[in-house]
Order: sequence, then structure tokens, then C-alpha cells
Amino acid sequence: MLGSLGLVIPVRDDLRVLEGYHSPQVDVDVRLNTNESPLSPPDAFRDALAAELSRIEWHRYPDRAATELRRAIADWHGVDPSMVFAANGSNEVLQTILLTYAGAGRRVATFEPTYQMHAQIARVVGSEVVEGERNADFTLDPDELRRVVDEYDPHVTFLTSPNNPTGLVEPSERIGELLDVTNGLVVADEAYAQFADWSALELLDDDRPLVVTRTFSKTWSMAGVRLGYAIGPAWFVDELEKVVLPYHLDAVKQLAGRVALRFVDDMNERVRLIVDERERLSTTMRGMPIDVTPSGANFILFRPTSIGGRDLWQQLLDRSILVRDCSGWPRLADCLRVTVGTPDENDAFITALKEILT
Amino acid sequence: MLGSLGLVIPVRDDLRVLEGYHSPQVDVDVRLNTNESPLSPPDAFRDALAAELSRIEWHRYPDRAATELRRAIADWHGVDPSMVFAANGSNEVLQTILLTYAGAGRRVATFEPTYQMHAQIARVVGSEVVEGERNADFTLDPDELRRVVDEYDPHVTFLTSPNNPTGLVEPSERIGELLDVTNGLVVADEAYAQFADWSALELLDDDRPLVVTRTFSKTWSMAGVRLGYAIGPAWFVDELEKVVLPYHLDAVKQLAGRVALRFVDDMNERVRLIVDERERLSTTMRGMPIDVTPSGANFILFRPTSIGGRDLWQQLLDRSILVRDCSGWPRLADCLRVTVGTPDENDAFITALKEILT
Repeated sequence: MLGSLGLVIPVRDDLRVLEGYHSPQVDVDVRLNTNESPLSPPDAFRDALAAELSRIEWHRYPDRAATELRRAIADWHGVDPSMVFAANGSNEVLQTILLTYAGAGRRVATFEPTYQMHAQIARVVGSEVVEGERNADFTLDPDELRRVVDEYDPHVTFLTSPNNPTGLVEPSERIGELLDVTNGLVVADEAYAQFADWSALELLDDDRPLVVTRTFSKTWSMAGVRLGYAIGPAWFVDELEKVVLPYHLDAVKQLAGRVALRFVDDMNERVRLIVDERERLSTTMRGMPIDVTPSGANFILFRPTSIGGRDLWQQLLDRSILVRDCSGWPRLADCLRVTVGTPDENDAFITALKEILT
Repeated sequence: MLGSLGLVIPVRDDLRVLEGYHSPQVDVDVRLNTNESPLSPPDAFRDALAAELSRIEWHRYPDRAATELRRAIADWHGVDPSMVFAANGSNEVLQTILLTYAGAGRRVATFEPTYQMHAQIARVVGSEVVEGERNADFTLDPDELRRVVDEYDPHVTFLTSPNNPTGLVEPSERIGELLDVTNGLVVADEAYAQFADWSALELLDDDRPLVVTRTFSKTWSMAGVRLGYAIGPAWFVDELEKVVLPYHLDAVKQLAGRVALRFVDDMNERVRLIVDERERLSTTMRGMPIDVTPSGANFILFRPTSIGGRDLWQQLLDRSILVRDCSGWPRLADCLRVTVGTPDENDAFITALKEILT
């Protein structure tokens, strides 16, 4: 790194900003590019949180163990609080897992295309990233799964279900097959699992090296709060506690997560709406010259067949609709990803698609 | 790591929970063990923050660049926003610095005793920790500083000023001497600098590999918010952005930091009170059979000369006063650390000391 007098600081030269992750700073009417919830939490959540916040002792450190938050998450999932680890967004959960179970000289396996932060964080902590390949339809072949494990013996293997950016739900058998052959830790990244029809939570067992990561950003409509968590065997959580920064979870976040969990019915209603809208969008798009990947998430990956993906992205933007442009990403030529929005937002998206493609 | 069926997961075996960092879970009247501010932020801060929070869009991701928060911090320090990096407590600032400039196969230098998280985080990210030694009075000999740099050529060197747990302010010359000889990055950890009479901020220069870290936990009475930051050359901040997790700073925290900075006069008044009380405490303790280390922080390291440190700690606890027991830490035999509290808390501490020691 050069200062203006030619000063040389030996920064690591293997790090770089993840490409394609920054959102374009544009002003649009319909923003369907970051897989946020289109709906706020209920007003009752705001009121309850405001009441709790008025009692915070700002000058005191928060509960280092996040006892009440972990208990609330555990109760909701029907597990013991010793099986819950919470952090600043599921990204920090993933980083803590990788610092604990991977790190320098260890191998981390991903099956591409998938959530880019898995490989990015693995590289940042010094691990070697081993990339398995998915089929052309983005499903994962069990033979490829076995090949990667046999060839590289990864210390940590990620399966994302539903996968991002494809939306595909990983079948339960695939995780079982992976657990049968690996000597390492299996991380089922389930940021979008509440939109899908099954969860790897049902496979958790104290004697299996399987953990599940979740987030409050999507179904809980709390992307602004940055709260994620992992559920896994208590011995796994104990290991993470050796690595995570002390007092990493602030007092507000601990409260916000607890208060959110008082509104499970509202959350379920929002999820139902999104799932219904996702099916409506998928069905409509299948009637157009578009390849639509089946989605179990709150977004849809699609590829226009009559024009280029980048062209379609630009024409949508010209109509003030922003979706995620994945067309330049490896293995995703001509693909775009649309977040399921409100019914009105989805109508606007469909109308624009029709205009452009017919 | 063994599950109950003898499952072997290859966890890293070089990690451990930092000893002596967990506070004892005891119920006491006077809690002077964690260097928190004894005073809340003003009520006007609470009200202003509550008003801002009512406008948060919880379901949207926060500003990834924390633009307004960084501008507010930069304005206060009279620097450009491109020189400010903010994170979840200064611990995450330190972790990001070490992931960027250190990591596996690189060397990190500390001068012991000092803030334990420097070495802990360095080990977690895979770096070799090189420990320099301080003199018996905890000052740092320039020859020892040069010896460590010459012998190990560290990629990152920490100087903590005021140092924790000693309270000693590092003289400006020491940082200058270090910058003269090192090829690596110098991190001046200034978590407590606002209680001291100078800051390494005045040494910052685009052509010097020097950065300063700060926190909102102490002078800003916001330990519950977990917000810290670094100030350094823009090229340094640019490097950290390659490594830090995207959207690591939630919307509430960004607002809380901005709102706090509207109340600089209140902060300065709290700092004046703590500094006055620190001097009163130090003077009083010097009249007892106690070695008192000169402090530029909001705490005092001391060693009783007529009884053992652990014995004194227990006798204080018996009187419902909790201080930090450092007596078992390396190089700190018989030492205790007391956080400067409110005048009443300090009176209670002094009264107890007198009872025990006379």
C-alpha cells in the first residue's frame, strides 16, 4: 500500500472487495434487489421495543452471554439455550464459525453458485476455498458432493438451503449424504428457510457435526437490526465462545430480537403472503420467454431467453425497477434475481417484464 | 471435540477462552470492575435517540458505508470521513485491523502487561504474538521497543495509551520511536484517551503507518451500544473495507453514535468529574500502604504492600465492593484495578480500604 511519499505497508495482498455485492446507488420506485422483506414489523413491535429501550442502562456493558435472547430463540425452536449462538447478522455467525473450525491451512468447501460470503469470509480468515460445481439447473449431484469431500477432506462444508442466488431448496438426502462422508463440520445456511417446506433443524443431533444458521433480516423484517444466529450441538456453541469477541452483541440488539419473537403470528402471516406472491410471480414468468428456477425463498432467479440478461436489467431500471444483476457472475450468464415484493411492487415488475419481452 | 458417541470434529486446538476476562457474577452495592462510566448519558440523549428510532425502517438494510455516522465522528475530530472506520465496539475494529494487516504467518507485537484482547484476537486470526516486556513500573523502555522490532519485524504493533490495566499514558516520543524503526502498522489503542492529556491523533499523517482506535463505551457512557472506531489514513480505511463484513453496523448503532455526538459538552463535563475523582482517589490511596500506578484513564492500578492483593480483593468484596482482581495475571502479582466511580462510590471504596488496611 503506497502513501504519497512511497511508504510501503505490507498489507495482505490476497484480499479484495467482493465484486457484485455493492448495490448501485440509484433512485428507483421499486427496489427488489436485496431480498429484504417488503413489509415492516407491526406497529406493536415498534411500541414494545420503544418501551423496552427506555429502560436500557446505556453506560453499562450488555449481558455478555445474551442469556435472555438465546433463551427466547431456543424456546421458539424448541431447543436448549446452550444450542444457540447469536451474532451481528448471520455474516458474523459465519465468520465466527470459520475462525473456529477453519482458519489458515484449512479447507472450506462451497458448491457454486452459492452465497458469495462463504468463500469471501473463508479467504479472509486464511482458509483455502474448494469449489464444487452444481448442475446446469443448479441442483447438486451427490457424486460431485462426494468427489469434493474425497478429494479435499474439507474442514467446513457449506450447503445453503434455500440456496442464494438460485432459490433452490437442498433436499434432506443431500445433507444426509454429506454427513455420511465428511470428517468436517457441515453448515446449513438457512437464511431463507422459513419460506421453504423443510429445515435441516430436524436433522440436528448432538452426535452430528451439523449446524444451522438463521437470520432476523428476512422473515422477521429486521434487516436494519443485523441479528443472526446458529443452532447446533452445545459443544459447537462452546467452541464458538472461545473465538467470538466479548460483548459483541449490544443491548439494543438483544432486546430487539427478544421483542420480535413476541410477534410470531405476524411473522408467519408475512411469510404466507410472500410465498403466495412468489408462486404468483413464478407462474406468470413461466408464461413468458424466461427460464425460471424453482424457488423456496423470497426471491426468484430467472434468465430471459429472448434478450440478454444485462439488457433486461437495464430496461427494468429504465422503468424504475431495480433487481439484482447476476448476469456477469460466474456460472450465471444472463441471470437476474428478483426479490418478492408487495403485491403492488410485483404487479409493477410483471407489467414491465411484459412490456419489455412481448 | 467429542460428542457422546465419540464423534471427532477437527476443531482448532490453539484456541481458548481468555482467562480473567469474565466478570464474577456477584451481586454487589458498588461495582468498580469493568471501567464503565458510572454516569448515564443525559436524558436529552435518550429523548433524541427515541425520536430518531421511531423513524427507522427496520426491514431495510442499514447504510452499508455508515456515511452519516462517519461524517459526525470525522467532524468532531476535524478529519475527513474517509479517515474513519467504525465497527461493533473497538474489539471489532481491532479484529478487522488484524484480519487485514496480520492473519496467518504474520507477527503481532504487544508490550505486556497490556489489553489482553490484542494478543487474543491476534491468535484467533492465526498470527504469531510477539511479547515485549515493560519495566517493573510498567513504563516502556525504548531499547526494549527497538529490540522487539529488530528481532521480529512485526506486521502490526500495539501501543495502548492510556494502557490497560496500568493506566499509564505512553509518551509521544515512544510512538515516534516506534514509527522510526518499524516496517509494519502501529495501532495506538486509545480507548481511554479522553481521560489523558495527549492523544496520538496529533501524530496522524497520510504517510505514517499509524492508526488510532477509540470507543464510545467509556467517555460517551455507551458501553451498552458497542460502538468503536479507528482514525487513520484513507488508504488504511480502504484496506479495512475489503475485509469487514458487509452491513456490519446496524441502523440503531449508527443513529446512537450520531445522536451521542450532539452532546459533547455533557461528555466533557463527565470526563472532568472522572478525572477529578481519579486524582482524589490516587492522592488518598498514596497515603495508605499501597503502590499506586499513575493513571491517565478512568481506573487506577494499585498494589497493597501490607497484605496480599487477592486478600484485599476478597475483603473489599466482603464489603460489597467489586474491583478487578489482576493479582493472578502474569506480571501483575498482587495488583488490583479500580474503576473510578461516582463520588459516593469512591467514598465507599476509600472507607473500605481504610478499614481493611489500618
